[in-house]
Amino acid sequence: MSIAEQIHEANGRFMEGIRTADAAVMPTLYTEDAQILPPNGELVNGPEAIAAFWQSFFELGIKDARPVTLEVIPMGVLAVEVGTYSLHGEDGSLLDRGKIMVVWKQEGGVWKMHRDMWNSSVPLTEPNAESV
Amino acid sequence: MSIAEQIHEANGRFMEGIRTADAAVMPTLYTEDAQILPPNGELVNGPEAIAAFWQSFFELGIKDARPVTLEVIPMGVLAVEVGTYSLHGEDGSLLDRGKIMVVWKQEGGVWKMHRDMWNSSVPLTEPNAESV
Repeated sequence: MSIAEQIHEANGRFMEGIRTADAAVMPTLYTEDAQILPPNGELVNGPEAIAAFWQSFFELGIKDARPVTLEVIPMGVLAVEVGTYSLHGEDGSLLDRGKIMVVWKQEGGVWKMHRDMWNSSVPLTEPNAESV
Repeated sequence: MSIAEQIHEANGRFMEGIRTADAAVMPTLYTEDAQILPPNGELVNGPEAIAAFWQSFFELGIKDARPVTLEVIPMGVLAVEVGTYSLHGEDGSLLDRGKIMVVWKQEGGVWKMHRDMWNSSVPLTEPNAESV
């Protein structure tokens, strides 16, 4: 199976974790020393913080996340995935859409997310002038 | 010079491009087939669109961008940089701060940005409910 196919499979497990709102399974999709770089939040470090991050994500009412891979750049035991995503609510309604960039790393023979970043492609309605 | 040092130098040229608001120099810091993945906007492809993107960025009143490298993951002719940034206005005022993830690629012996993504760490003041 190619790296792209293995990443596709791993994304399937990620989507299943979101659909079942299973915060406990989410850190198993990431390397031991993974980081999430979420929009409008601080860097998230390590398994416990990753589980808590996704728990708070589920509490926003997000029921479904659909990543679409545009490109996989293989680099030995690492690979960079560039793609798009959409987030959906209860009735399949579109909550957000944007872009992803993920560094994948093979750990114990399994491809896991090592650095996970995304941002929205939706224009801001207002300048975000919260105290920076 | 290590890859991290070369990326540090390239970031110096990037910062100079921002400070001098030189849209024409910006594409020279990117590979021929580079992509920018900006927050709250669509994917930006190729030199002309990259120059136009930075021109519109300058028109927002951003006078200074300060990337800080936290990590460089070398992968042969490619490297992934993870870090933070701050954006500053006329009087040095803080306009935004956030995180960066950049895929660097050596092109003609020079490290250039190949995939350039960032997002703000500042919480949204309001749910961003513009038509998605």
